[in-house]
Amino acid sequence: MVRPSIVLFGDSITEEAFGEGGWGASLANHYSRSADVVLRGYSGYNTRWAARVANRAVATISGHVAAVTVCFGANDAALPDRASAAQHVPVAEYRDNLRAISALLQRRWPGVVVILVTPPPVDEDGRRRRCRYPYAHDYSGLPERTNAAAGVYARACVEVARQCGVRAIDVWSRMQKFAGWEKSFLRDGLHLTPRGNRVLFEEVVFALKDANLSLESLPADLPLFGDMDPNNPAKSFEDDEWAEC
Amino acid sequence: MVRPSIVLFGDSITEEAFGEGGWGASLANHYSRSADVVLRGYSGYNTRWAARVANRAVATISGHVAAVTVCFGANDAALPDRASAAQHVPVAEYRDNLRAISALLQRRWPGVVVILVTPPPVDEDGRRRRCRYPYAHDYSGLPERTNAAAGVYARACVEVARQCGVRAIDVWSRMQKFAGWEKSFLRDGLHLTPRGNRVLFEEVVFALKDANLSLESLPADLPLFGDMDPNNPAKSFEDDEWAEC
Repeated sequence: MVRPSIVLFGDSITEEAFGEGGWGASLANHYSRSADVVLRGYSGYNTRWAARVANRAVATISGHVAAVTVCFGANDAALPDRASAAQHVPVAEYRDNLRAISALLQRRWPGVVVILVTPPPVDEDGRRRRCRYPYAHDYSGLPERTNAAAGVYARACVEVARQCGVRAIDVWSRMQKFAGWEKSFLRDGLHLTPRGNRVLFEEVVFALKDANLSLESLPADLPLFGDMDPNNPAKSFEDDEWAEC
Repeated sequence: MVRPSIVLFGDSITEEAFGEGGWGASLANHYSRSADVVLRGYSGYNTRWAARVANRAVATISGHVAAVTVCFGANDAALPDRASAAQHVPVAEYRDNLRAISALLQRRWPGVVVILVTPPPVDEDGRRRRCRYPYAHDYSGLPERTNAAAGVYARACVEVARQCGVRAIDVWSRMQKFAGWEKSFLRDGLHLTPRGNRVLFEEVVFALKDANLSLESLPADLPLFGDMDPNNPAKSFEDDEWAEC
């Protein structure tokens, strides 16, 4: 009876998912009659902190969870000797943490579809121009995040997904296939513009479809107005399926 | 432990609430760390059908519901002798249905904050121009909805709220206080533009604040990154409050 949920677990890329043109809002709109989209985004978090609180985070969610996206790594990949060193997590630990989070989610919700999402690419020029000290650079003006470092974590994320037998969305690679990705998809060199959100939304819809959670495969909640007989709309509510409970 | 939810129950004004600039998406973004926004919008529905399926609709929602917006009337107010006659509900029955829905929600979730939302105003010119036959007019070209009729239902909605001791948002009156509301707030004479969504979002935030459900009064889920000690971020997770469960 309870509608299935799709949980979005991650850092700021997730916490912002219901902002302007956000990928989470688009998902909620897409599944408006068939699934609930539940936001569990924690800005600034790396996988070390996420793994530590994952039990508590999932305990705040009730109902039937059909799928969960896990999007961390943008903070883990912050360079260890620059302005955002406090967020850095070595890539070997990042792998371990992702594995632990994935296993915890599968224990908590047996049969859940886990989708690991890589960090997006980094536009170092955009970080420098759009983000104020000390978030994007230190005294030296050196960036605290690089695209090369994000790529190392993206590849690790895809590899962990393969090893764990769960799905992955490599948004780091996907975005870089488009010319002008740096300014088109990234607002401040790291966070997504509405167009960047669109790319991630489409990748998530594709992954959910691949997991038999497409719009077409989920039942719509209550009769659609377009399916009702205009001469006898009440008839649509007489089916046993929709009987009052 | 479970995060409180705010349920949005209504017709297309609600079902579309996570579209571009939607008031539901803005609410989810506003409460991103403290409350879940749960969409239960059923396009085209009037209160007769809503009252009939309300039990089933609420049964699809689990967890702790703190508040629920109820936004119907735009379809009830469709004129009984025009193109959308199948959706029309007489205003006396509209009142009874709203009362029944409000009572049902309070039985289901004791202590829940119920907020009745009036239908928005109608821009008859916008309906005629932007909406294709037979949704906006019949052969005669006469509109199937008028602002005067929507106003009758809006006043009835506010009165029912007062009688039942629940909150009301009179978006019909509120929007008409702004010059140019017809094209600024309404996309097709009936449904909301991003600016119209903004008006409704702000009214809902205000009503929730009045009901002690402001952002400030709800606890944030897990430590905020901005509150962590950059030299010892792990310390934030040592409090009992955040202990693993």
